[in-house]
Amino acid sequence: MIVAMQGIATEENIQQVIERMVELGFNVHRTTGASQTILAGVGTPDHFEVAEFKVLPGVHDAYRISSPYKLAGRSFRPEGTKITFPNGVVVGGQEITIMAGPCSVESREQILTSAKIVKAAGAQFLRGGAFKPRSSPYSFQGMGLEGLKLLREVSDATGLLVITEVMEISQIELMLPYIDCFQVGARNMQNFNLLRELGHVRKPVLMKRGISATIEEVLLSAEYILSGGNYDLILCERGIRTYETYTRNTMDISAIPVLKKLTHLPVFADPSHGIGIRDMVAPMALASVAAGADGLLMEMHPNPDKAMSDGAQSLYPQQLQDLIAKLRLLAPVVERTVA
Amino acid sequence: MIVAMQGIATEENIQQVIERMVELGFNVHRTTGASQTILAGVGTPDHFEVAEFKVLPGVHDAYRISSPYKLAGRSFRPEGTKITFPNGVVVGGQEITIMAGPCSVESREQILTSAKIVKAAGAQFLRGGAFKPRSSPYSFQGMGLEGLKLLREVSDATGLLVITEVMEISQIELMLPYIDCFQVGARNMQNFNLLRELGHVRKPVLMKRGISATIEEVLLSAEYILSGGNYDLILCERGIRTYETYTRNTMDISAIPVLKKLTHLPVFADPSHGIGIRDMVAPMALASVAAGADGLLMEMHPNPDKAMSDGAQSLYPQQLQDLIAKLRLLAPVVERTVA
Amino acid sequence: MIVAMQGIATEENIQQVIERMVELGFNVHRTTGASQTILAGVGTPDHFEVAEFKVLPGVHDAYRISSPYKLAGRSFRPEGTKITFPNGVVVGGQEITIMAGPCSVESREQILTSAKIVKAAGAQFLRGGAFKPRSSPYSFQGMGLEGLKLLREVSDATGLLVITEVMEISQIELMLPYIDCFQVGARNMQNFNLLRELGHVRKPVLMKRGISATIEEVLLSAEYILSGGNYDLILCERGIRTYETYTRNTMDISAIPVLKKLTHLPVFADPSHGIGIRDMVAPMALASVAAGADGLLMEMHPNPDKAMSDGAQSLYPQQLQDLIAKLRLLAPVVERTVA
Amino acid sequence: MIVAMQGIATEENIQQVIERMVELGFNVHRTTGASQTILAGVGTPDHFEVAEFKVLPGVHDAYRISSPYKLAGRSFRPEGTKITFPNGVVVGGQEITIMAGPCSVESREQILTSAKIVKAAGAQFLRGGAFKPRSSPYSFQGMGLEGLKLLREVSDATGLLVITEVMEISQIELMLPYIDCFQVGARNMQNFNLLRELGHVRKPVLMKRGISATIEEVLLSAEYILSGGNYDLILCERGIRTYETYTRNTMDISAIPVLKKLTHLPVFADPSHGIGIRDMVAPMALASVAAGADGLLMEMHPNPDKAMSDGAQSLYPQQLQDLIAKLRLLAPVVERTVA
Repeated sequence: MIVAMQGIATEENIQQVIERMVELGFNVHRTTGASQTILAGVGTPDHFEVAEFKVLPGVHDAYRISSPYKLAGRSFRPEGTKITFPNGVVVGGQEITIMAGPCSVESREQILTSAKIVKAAGAQFLRGGAFKPRSSPYSFQGMGLEGLKLLREVSDATGLLVITEVMEISQIELMLPYIDCFQVGARNMQNFNLLRELGHVRKPVLMKRGISATIEEVLLSAEYILSGGNYDLILCERGIRTYETYTRNTMDISAIPVLKKLTHLPVFADPSHGIGIRDMVAPMALASVAAGADGLLMEMHPNPDKAMSDGAQSLYPQQLQDLIAKLRLLAPVVERTVA
Repeated sequence: MIVAMQGIATEENIQQVIERMVELGFNVHRTTGASQTILAGVGTPDHFEVAEFKVLPGVHDAYRISSPYKLAGRSFRPEGTKITFPNGVVVGGQEITIMAGPCSVESREQILTSAKIVKAAGAQFLRGGAFKPRSSPYSFQGMGLEGLKLLREVSDATGLLVITEVMEISQIELMLPYIDCFQVGARNMQNFNLLRELGHVRKPVLMKRGISATIEEVLLSAEYILSGGNYDLILCERGIRTYETYTRNTMDISAIPVLKKLTHLPVFADPSHGIGIRDMVAPMALASVAAGADGLLMEMHPNPDKAMSDGAQSLYPQQLQDLIAKLRLLAPVVERTVA
Repeated sequence: MIVAMQGIATEENIQQVIERMVELGFNVHRTTGASQTILAGVGTPDHFEVAEFKVLPGVHDAYRISSPYKLAGRSFRPEGTKITFPNGVVVGGQEITIMAGPCSVESREQILTSAKIVKAAGAQFLRGGAFKPRSSPYSFQGMGLEGLKLLREVSDATGLLVITEVMEISQIELMLPYIDCFQVGARNMQNFNLLRELGHVRKPVLMKRGISATIEEVLLSAEYILSGGNYDLILCERGIRTYETYTRNTMDISAIPVLKKLTHLPVFADPSHGIGIRDMVAPMALASVAAGADGLLMEMHPNPDKAMSDGAQSLYPQQLQDLIAKLRLLAPVVERTVA
Repeated sequence: MIVAMQGIATEENIQQVIERMVELGFNVHRTTGASQTILAGVGTPDHFEVAEFKVLPGVHDAYRISSPYKLAGRSFRPEGTKITFPNGVVVGGQEITIMAGPCSVESREQILTSAKIVKAAGAQFLRGGAFKPRSSPYSFQGMGLEGLKLLREVSDATGLLVITEVMEISQIELMLPYIDCFQVGARNMQNFNLLRELGHVRKPVLMKRGISATIEEVLLSAEYILSGGNYDLILCERGIRTYETYTRNTMDISAIPVLKKLTHLPVFADPSHGIGIRDMVAPMALASVAAGADGLLMEMHPNPDKAMSDGAQSLYPQQLQDLIAKLRLLAPVVERTVA
């Protein structure tokens, strides 16, 4: 940590800062300039709050100079994390992973049709919500356990892996037999109790960025899961909240190269939630892969105009097929492949 | 719902929209203008997504014209909600309610000293975290059950009510014997499973606005609790995330008069998290009451410079006392009182 | 400036940073810790970009530790700036200044009626736009020179001072004979050429915060005016752009105490643009003064329902009168007065 | 326009709204539902403010149902706008246009070297600032007229076109002899007087999106230029301001497909300002073209580590060359070409 004192700081002010730094476990190096004094704290105390120093008398500003996350940092695994699924699919390697399917599981027929389309288009994962987090208590809340069983059944029938959203701790046990990957939604990215439990599970997790989460907060939430011993974690950019309302969210494509630099974890993109408008999902999917994404999570519905949720952003089957065809052409430009 | 068609929309486009509206349960009134057609959907289908219509061919835009929340709306209880606590304290009445205390319960001595200061200054509630949601897994996570017991003990000793944060469903039962009011933190404002459970409890809840929640989302989350039958709900503005980084958050004081207009629920303000800088908590507290807040939730620590969390925004004891003295002068200007 | 190196930085990386710092005019102090090296740059080069250092190889992060503004800083004039107008009105003193009037000058009758109401209510300044910045080229663009003349005439008749918005350099000369204070609108807060010219004028300026300006940017823009020799500058918070759309802008009340701490310049608030909803202007005005504002700028129209611009946020005459009556009661709580 | 009344609105409330709509020039169609009344205003009054209706008694909400821009809308020129420059370069066609060069013109040698590199890499335009808008009055402000002359000289020598930023009206005449395209910077996107003047010039303009401009505001500002008769306008996404601070701005890649749908004007992207970090400019450039951009505006400096401005985001010469090579491979995937 570094504390820059104001020009008008008194020696008493400076001593107060030094004492508190030492108390927290820092060794303090002092640089006295003509205009101000700088205090560099060397060492790595277990926890401290930079904000505490910013309000001490005579302090101009204080800066944390080490990353607050450790296991999530790129230097922990410079070669990058690869996750191998039971059927041999590898996430985080040369091949772009594609996860697609409806927002919600609505019926056996709907999810079976979806699975066939998704498989035929070339995806590796079937997505579909069984438990749905909805802003309104009056919206469709999902099929629950019945939805999980249907997901497993149709995925086994088509050779796909299953990813679905987990919303609370009690659902973890319930889901384990039916799924291949847990999805943590944007609203739960800082549900730390849930994250901690997922750290104790031995099944991969895809964690979406919270709607107003900074990149540092994404990595700190990742740290909750990693520090429990679960290293099979995928991060996913899905749009952040800004002042622009034409699109559902503002997809922060720049977070993709930034995360690829800061962490060893695979980085996915969800262009469906990112933009929220069906006809613009394809350009955003192409942009995500061009920017370095390791995979895509997308909504596709056999009949989006009648979908029970998120129909406006769900691709038509033909749109998914056309998009994946384009991705096959694009991937080699960034030295990747699409199955 | 209203759908405004584009000038170039074909009759086929218009018919597709009408059919879908009818299918959802709307009666459709059509206005044909020289430049465009307008379709007004009359009726109140159980659920529908406006976004679905925005992407239909030939549609210019679509608008929901009824509030998606019902029980939370001002018209449900035009006279406003008052909550009476066991010791007779009333929230939502003429008197401004003050809740104060440390961020975290750290020790018996710390919380007992806090309670005495808070009581002497004139507050009605002691706040203090036993379970702490922390961005980093390496930060102090709270004293847990032991903290709850201490809160109850010192509050009983001083005649204060207890408010503390609940982070997950399993903590509800645990907390019930020890507290007077549940606090739902900003990060859990869209933890719908938790909200639903709190709707089934018969104990008041204070729900903070999420860090990037719109006012409509606040009211929809309130609806989750109210629709379970728990009407003793307090809302709390605590700062939103914007591009400005000088302050911890940007306290949206304007949300106070807006919420007072839209809902019958009491509206509190948390200036400590709102601004995050100790010396500016008082002006923000005064501003909140001037803007119509029914109560304040604030951090005070007997020794903020040594606090285990949020020390930078915790008031010194004397600052709390001075602030409440000023609030007593200010309240009558807005036709309120402070005890 | 401080540069914190990464743990893995090589000696070559460190030398490259040191060389560049020296080249820019810094004296460099080096602290070598077990986990990373810290380079403190002492001295004050004329200009340098911190961002340049952040991308050098081996750098963890870089921090500017001195304020980039000088004349605007509180330490330049610790006692605060007071501006005395020709008729003896003092801005920045104990008394809260009130500026009110319609968005646009529309006619002699409208502006004369406005002036009388504003004066009777107790304000010191009449506001009114003669040149209007409008998002759409098809909206009413103001009466121009004729409007300026009307402003002067009715203000002289009623004993008010005149403030009006200047949009471009060529209007400065034109306005000088008719006005008492230039207003720089939010859209022009970073129109640096305009600011520089206003620095050469000897007439007070009120500069509004840009709709997405940080507090540091506000002070840097102030520096443009101050560095030209014009020290009679008032800053004005008027709402920033956030994701919340219920209100026109999100009024950042917390900017008021922050600016009062950082700068010696008077700080005003414009609750009309801040919230954009007539019935909520009063609570926001009260909140602004409670938070420490030195003055208010507000829209009032004799007949807001027929206003040519901004009618939705313009107070009715009676509302202005009632508000100022409340301000007279509130001001003493924060040790101020209202005339 | 549509006005949805509240369920509790009285007949008097409804009549007041109808009268005001008629007064503004609307024909009003009334739909009376069981729960609320809807008033559809048919017709196109010259100007009106929707906000005015939102605050009338008994109104639930009011919606504008026509676009406030006309000439900028896609329907004005469904086939899209192509701009042909004197040397035959066409912007807005099948070929992606590349504009590159240093942030500022610093010297003859620097700009000549830059031009040669830019030309060799395959770009069509040389960019370079002669007048610089800088947040601080103490930063380098550009070479002025001398810079313009150098730009023209080296571009003629290398066969490039020249684009440079215009900051105020008086610079327009000055620049005309030396440049091929005016650039309006983000800070001037709502400098309406400047836009209006550029509408009277017969030379192409590239207008950047303001740092917090909505897409609708971009198109309204475009309307200022178009309505003056200058149809040779290029729009440019360059990043917006959000809460995320790791990147300089948050590049809103989704604005590219949105603008391509809403307007006929060519849409460019500026990944240098968009992300602000040299090593991440290439992925963002690729993403922009993948999302449908018609061209790129990028900073490249012969020696970025010594640049007088924006060095941190300026590409090394080799990086520009490598990027354009990749763009040549990517363009065909989206049915475009790169020279």
